[in-house]
Amino acid sequence: VRAAPAPKAIFCEKPVDLALDRARTCAEAVHAANAPCLIGFQRRYDPTFAALKARIDDGEIGTPEMLVVTSRDPGAPPVDYIKRSGGIFKDMLIHDFDVFRWILGDEAASVYATGSCLTDPAIEGAGDVDATAVTIRTRRGRLAQINTIRRAAYGYDQRFEVIGAKGMLQAGNHRPTEVVSWSSEAVAADKPEHFFLERYRAAYANEMAHFFDVLAGRATPRTSIDDGVAALALAEAATTSWREKRIVEL
Amino acid sequence: VRAAPAPKAIFCEKPVDLALDRARTCAEAVHAANAPCLIGFQRRYDPTFAALKARIDDGEIGTPEMLVVTSRDPGAPPVDYIKRSGGIFKDMLIHDFDVFRWILGDEAASVYATGSCLTDPAIEGAGDVDATAVTIRTRRGRLAQINTIRRAAYGYDQRFEVIGAKGMLQAGNHRPTEVVSWSSEAVAADKPEHFFLERYRAAYANEMAHFFDVLAGRATPRTSIDDGVAALALAEAATTSWREKRIVEL
Amino acid sequence: VRAAPAPKAIFCEKPVDLALDRARTCAEAVHAANAPCLIGFQRRYDPTFAALKARIDDGEIGTPEMLVVTSRDPGAPPVDYIKRSGGIFKDMLIHDFDVFRWILGDEAASVYATGSCLTDPAIEGAGDVDATAVTIRTRRGRLAQINTIRRAAYGYDQRFEVIGAKGMLQAGNHRPTEVVSWSSEAVAADKPEHFFLERYRAAYANEMAHFFDVLAGRATPRTSIDDGVAALALAEAATTSWREKRIVEL
Amino acid sequence: VRAAPAPKAIFCEKPVDLALDRARTCAEAVHAANAPCLIGFQRRYDPTFAALKARIDDGEIGTPEMLVVTSRDPGAPPVDYIKRSGGIFKDMLIHDFDVFRWILGDEAASVYATGSCLTDPAIEGAGDVDATAVTIRTRRGRLAQINTIRRAAYGYDQRFEVIGAKGMLQAGNHRPTEVVSWSSEAVAADKPEHFFLERYRAAYANEMAHFFDVLAGRATPRTSIDDGVAALALAEAATTSWREKRIVEL
Repeated sequence: VRAAPAPKAIFCEKPVDLALDRARTCAEAVHAANAPCLIGFQRRYDPTFAALKARIDDGEIGTPEMLVVTSRDPGAPPVDYIKRSGGIFKDMLIHDFDVFRWILGDEAASVYATGSCLTDPAIEGAGDVDATAVTIRTRRGRLAQINTIRRAAYGYDQRFEVIGAKGMLQAGNHRPTEVVSWSSEAVAADKPEHFFLERYRAAYANEMAHFFDVLAGRATPRTSIDDGVAALALAEAATTSWREKRIVEL
Repeated sequence: VRAAPAPKAIFCEKPVDLALDRARTCAEAVHAANAPCLIGFQRRYDPTFAALKARIDDGEIGTPEMLVVTSRDPGAPPVDYIKRSGGIFKDMLIHDFDVFRWILGDEAASVYATGSCLTDPAIEGAGDVDATAVTIRTRRGRLAQINTIRRAAYGYDQRFEVIGAKGMLQAGNHRPTEVVSWSSEAVAADKPEHFFLERYRAAYANEMAHFFDVLAGRATPRTSIDDGVAALALAEAATTSWREKRIVEL
Repeated sequence: VRAAPAPKAIFCEKPVDLALDRARTCAEAVHAANAPCLIGFQRRYDPTFAALKARIDDGEIGTPEMLVVTSRDPGAPPVDYIKRSGGIFKDMLIHDFDVFRWILGDEAASVYATGSCLTDPAIEGAGDVDATAVTIRTRRGRLAQINTIRRAAYGYDQRFEVIGAKGMLQAGNHRPTEVVSWSSEAVAADKPEHFFLERYRAAYANEMAHFFDVLAGRATPRTSIDDGVAALALAEAATTSWREKRIVEL
Repeated sequence: VRAAPAPKAIFCEKPVDLALDRARTCAEAVHAANAPCLIGFQRRYDPTFAALKARIDDGEIGTPEMLVVTSRDPGAPPVDYIKRSGGIFKDMLIHDFDVFRWILGDEAASVYATGSCLTDPAIEGAGDVDATAVTIRTRRGRLAQINTIRRAAYGYDQRFEVIGAKGMLQAGNHRPTEVVSWSSEAVAADKPEHFFLERYRAAYANEMAHFFDVLAGRATPRTSIDDGVAALALAEAATTSWREKRIVEL
């Protein structure tokens, strides 16, 4: 709100704000000042995810009909952080909500979210959950499911798959190396990259390069403040659905 | 109802009946006559699925916490069949509901189901859907998601994954051969086995062998009529959830 | 030699004989009597290998130019067996020599073989080796390499790959199940099928079905006694190359 | 020879020289001046290859017994380059000879090499081959096979596998993305990285970082001029084996 009219170019990590109305106020300030503003949805800049999106846009699988997102962290952040995080839907799934909008090119008509505290009672004590199951119906009747957990013993798990009339595209995890071991126990490959700093190393670099392009006037932000507000609106709807145990229409 | 008191040994494909109360009457007749009765949930006899279940029971991943089931057919049956099928939840997902109960060893507390007609308007004309997204919360707070579609261009897609505190186990598709082609286009493996007759060939053989063991008094049915009724109850709850657009408590 | 003029239909496991001249005498007897005679090179009947061969014949990779064969046993047979086996080239690699001829559709111009005793000194005591590296140049200048060892800790390893101008085709191992485990250690799939009885279960069934077709006059043997003699000739050349430390021209 | 006594730190791409005696003269000059000298065998700095080597050194598979190296280029360089390259063994396989020495930690006792011109007659016209098959026996009796071709339609193919008493370790190709496509044709992953600049991007960076460590006196060269000479000696032996059609003892 202060930077936009300064005028300053803005790079803003998610969420724009924990409160949806404040986020909308930010968006208005950005639009009023016509300020360059990039939201840090780094997944859109990941080589695997971006290649998948480009292949959808090329028509490889026809119209996307269903999306299944797997989004699991290797471990939960400290409970003190969780208390201030806005809850798992705004802190963690907001990235998945952005992926949903980007990949399907569609908006949510209804959201159903449920959650459990399965890994650490202190998270429940903080009023949050650590495992969620979300279903989104889009305006065009397409379906998306997101499954999330704060603790995957095997590392950061970031996969999704998109089904269309002509086939399916999957985005898989990245591995540190391509060593495979054949032993008397099993045939074993590396675990996925441990967490987001490793997994999205290339994405962060691409994101920064794009921001420099925006600063130089060579590009408009591919992850705009409107994307930030839209993902936050989904996170808020999911939070409501989980808390009130009902389907939320949008 | 007629076979049990005859007395005859009974092998019954799913669903036990399209009506839950009639299925319960069947179960009562079977129990009253103490008749050997096996329900054809062949997936429990599949080598991959059975190995995964045994590894869970051995504690490999700790307590199972989340389940994600992918269940996609290569194509829809004729609309005439769909009209008499009881709907996609009783016809197709009933297998997934049985897998859910078997793998998690838990019962549903609530079911949310939604669906769309994405592949053929004639299915909508028959009052059914061809794509569904189902979420189940169990009594112990665990979460399961099932995604289903009647048309997977690449064949029969039957996967699931189970997450526990110590890791994840996945059941993958089976391929006709292990040929891999490296071309100027891609590195390509076989599509999955085309449909259930190919995919569950070994499962059907194991199922029959188990039925013979039951007939010979060497075993009690691993897929009992109570399993048949329980899966049907879930299918009915899912149908209600979809039709009435609400969460169904069980 | 006795069965052919009887006349009897003949099913003969490899090698036709340990001595090349005696094997040739057998072939003459079979040809003189025009007796149906099938040599048990079961790998040609394996679904994976047969599919790969069919795709080569369809021109998928162009003319095959190079072949790399990996052929490893899970463990050595008893030394008493090894003493009477004719040596590793006639006992074990004879299958690989047949695969070489079948896949490349070409004949050897020269053979170089070397070997070592790496797993058990008793095998050296029996005058044999347990690890070999073989190179074959064909009459048309194509190249084939075979690597073999008697002890693969991870089970039976039966892979090959064929390179042509348009790409490569690989035949991979078969696994007992398609379960994959994601743990804090690794992402692990099943080891290969343990040994030939498991790995070539389908191949043996197809082979027998083909033999019945031969008996019924519906087919001529796809693995003829001439194939048996040709593979034995390669095994003998390889044995000579290894013993005399020289390249053997054919 | 001029840089070492200058004194200058030296970074030298392979081969040190096309003539083995001149390369040895260089090594003497480097040793006499005690000059820091790094040979550009970048594969030793590759994350996948280095991880595999570290796991061998940790004893994961026991003593390495056999090595199979696959080394294929996406296309041949111009014939003018080939004429001045010293031939395929000094130009292309010299990297594989270095990998052999590094991975097995052993030296060659004998080399057998054969080759063919399969992709372009102009290469034969230049006195070279474009496909080779090499076998090395080490002083301790271990076996290595290298297969090489100048034209892999699917891109740069850089794999190897090492077998020991306790299992096998494989180094696989790297892919640009982890997108997998499931279509009515196949289940298809990306081709390997196209050529060495892409495949060894991380290796080159690590190599340079190591060279800076050498310059700063924090490390001694991991790929020394002696490694450069030893790999060249193997390339020369292989060239002789191929030209004279004989096994070369070292």
